[in-house]
Amino acid sequence: MLEEVELSPSRLLARMREAAPLVQCITNHVAMNLAANTLLATGASPAMVEDVAEAGEFARIANALTINIGTLSSSGLDGMTSAIQGANAAGKPWVLDPVAHFATAFRRKAVGDLLTLKPTIIRGNASEILALGGGQGSGRGVDSGDTVEQAGEAARTLALKQNAIVAVTGPTDLVTDGSCAVRVYGGSALMPRVTAMGCALTCLVGAFAAVASKAPLQATVAALGVFAVAGETAAERARGPGSFVIHFLDALYALDAETLETRVQIELQR
Amino acid sequence: MLEEVELSPSRLLARMREAAPLVQCITNHVAMNLAANTLLATGASPAMVEDVAEAGEFARIANALTINIGTLSSSGLDGMTSAIQGANAAGKPWVLDPVAHFATAFRRKAVGDLLTLKPTIIRGNASEILALGGGQGSGRGVDSGDTVEQAGEAARTLALKQNAIVAVTGPTDLVTDGSCAVRVYGGSALMPRVTAMGCALTCLVGAFAAVASKAPLQATVAALGVFAVAGETAAERARGPGSFVIHFLDALYALDAETLETRVQIELQR
Amino acid sequence: MLEEVELSPSRLLARMREAAPLVQCITNHVAMNLAANTLLATGASPAMVEDVAEAGEFARIANALTINIGTLSSSGLDGMTSAIQGANAAGKPWVLDPVAHFATAFRRKAVGDLLTLKPTIIRGNASEILALGGGQGSGRGVDSGDTVEQAGEAARTLALKQNAIVAVTGPTDLVTDGSCAVRVYGGSALMPRVTAMGCALTCLVGAFAAVASKAPLQATVAALGVFAVAGETAAERARGPGSFVIHFLDALYALDAETLETRVQIELQR
Repeated sequence: MLEEVELSPSRLLARMREAAPLVQCITNHVAMNLAANTLLATGASPAMVEDVAEAGEFARIANALTINIGTLSSSGLDGMTSAIQGANAAGKPWVLDPVAHFATAFRRKAVGDLLTLKPTIIRGNASEILALGGGQGSGRGVDSGDTVEQAGEAARTLALKQNAIVAVTGPTDLVTDGSCAVRVYGGSALMPRVTAMGCALTCLVGAFAAVASKAPLQATVAALGVFAVAGETAAERARGPGSFVIHFLDALYALDAETLETRVQIELQR
Repeated sequence: MLEEVELSPSRLLARMREAAPLVQCITNHVAMNLAANTLLATGASPAMVEDVAEAGEFARIANALTINIGTLSSSGLDGMTSAIQGANAAGKPWVLDPVAHFATAFRRKAVGDLLTLKPTIIRGNASEILALGGGQGSGRGVDSGDTVEQAGEAARTLALKQNAIVAVTGPTDLVTDGSCAVRVYGGSALMPRVTAMGCALTCLVGAFAAVASKAPLQATVAALGVFAVAGETAAERARGPGSFVIHFLDALYALDAETLETRVQIELQR
Repeated sequence: MLEEVELSPSRLLARMREAAPLVQCITNHVAMNLAANTLLATGASPAMVEDVAEAGEFARIANALTINIGTLSSSGLDGMTSAIQGANAAGKPWVLDPVAHFATAFRRKAVGDLLTLKPTIIRGNASEILALGGGQGSGRGVDSGDTVEQAGEAARTLALKQNAIVAVTGPTDLVTDGSCAVRVYGGSALMPRVTAMGCALTCLVGAFAAVASKAPLQATVAALGVFAVAGETAAERARGPGSFVIHFLDALYALDAETLETRVQIELQR
């Protein structure tokens, strides 16, 4: 499946730069700025339209939708639900980022409800995916206490149960549709020292889903591959987490299809 | 009019650094941080006071108010309305940034209501001003699909109808009061690749309006001129959109009246 | 008291990096990103959980809580109150940052109510602490119009009245429990030119309080010392306020216990 040249990360990146898809990002208040800049640097057009008064209407115009519960509120949840219904009605892909969904009763209930609305793609860290897949993680707050390897089986179970693509991100990423699994290597140890990198990645997954709406697995792999390559480039130049973000956005902006093709490290398993 | 030395961009910048005006910025959640840093770097004192419980009271203390509907909500709109009423009652200038006002029914209605409260200055991209001026733009989401040139007539119409200063920003900016028009050249192609640059500019227009409250046209021209010169300086040093923002804030901070006078490119038309 | 080696800034920094405390930060929307990055760079794990539906439950899991009223709203205040009650019930320290509390009736009332909930530590600028201590400051908006020296007596009065640690930050910082007072030197004149530095510092005070919950005075001194040393390092490298933040986060991340011990400038008074 990954061998279809048309759906390779470099082809999808080229398509992104050409199409500049409109991506509705409902994300947490910590992440909004970095997420928007990540999409702009990669070539997409982000729009943070989130209130229930307009989110559903806007989702019909946008090419994809991303939902992140990092700073969840009751009114925010209404906007998310409305946006998802709009995206579903219009046949647009949507991505769920279940940030720390195990931390409180409010979050557990909210994520349960959001899952019934059938996300196209779910992206989380190992603790989040473990807990969603029915396992017992050791997450606390928003950081993962588990490894991607430990979450592999939970990811597969969740993908089959939800009929969704599931991505577990960490030092090495895993993407699965329940039958095949893809590993994406790369990135940098500085990434978890910068807030909202994972949230920005979720939005980028949405942007790639917008330009490959029939191939969400390949879209997810492309987003993770682009992120990992830009992260490696940034790490070579950064002195710490402050300069890392700057170099990361510059690297995303400068990344061309050829460099991506040379540097991206993807492995199909099974 | 622009020839009055007292109202030249460099004189107004000097006045800004001396007066440090208090500017109440009600802007979207993506832009708040960059907008505040833009004002601090230029010498103003920003305050993001937005809730209906206090926004109107605070507007009477502040020297100017700016309103941006990027992440609009019903409760947010109440705060904006209250702040505007406070500013109007106290005779303080206020600036409207009608972000993507054509995108949803909620936004169209909100901007219609806000316009009845008589903004001193309106700043938008070409698609936004075209649609406000009664034309048919090709905007989609928050990015402009039209050129500043195409929006010239709409800007003039809107300025006359609203009795307001209208600024259309893009590769070259246009400012008009309905009779005369001023072009501001400069800036950088990286600007639209950085989120919230336009929103930050709107807040800076408010800061200049605070130090030249009787001359909103000149205040707007000064803000756009300062922004364009700092943008050019930043572009010379930047490697991409990440480093651009950093250099932009440094350039704003370092900009002195003499450099501004030498580098600003303003042209009075007609 | 400060001579206890176990509670020196360098020991507390080492403890922070080892323990990675979970810090619930309810801060304003301008500051969220910088605050989270400040904590991550120093070794803590920030979580911006603020809605009334979950803030109280989360406060029982977190190791400390910080409250900042910069962008206050009625619903936000409900979340803050619930979080504080959770922290108090679980015996966790919490820090109050009374941003511009004198500016509006809504803020004055809110801060009065929050003070009855007994913050462990209060951090503000000179104008804020002066007004809280019953004095008459010359603050306007969020910036201080008074000096730390002028606020010394108000800080002592407030500390005794509230049975709390009070920190007044500015060019030189003052920390007091009402009987002894500690001065922390260092930092940079660029700090007030960057938005939300004080708010980020409040969150860092919370992180240090989490690893020294029995010694809030020493925790506060350690946070201020770390901030000042990183600020000095950043100022040596920065070209302006844009690059300052980047170097500041890099310096926080790189700061080791030995460097801190050598460079921190603390003075116990009386």
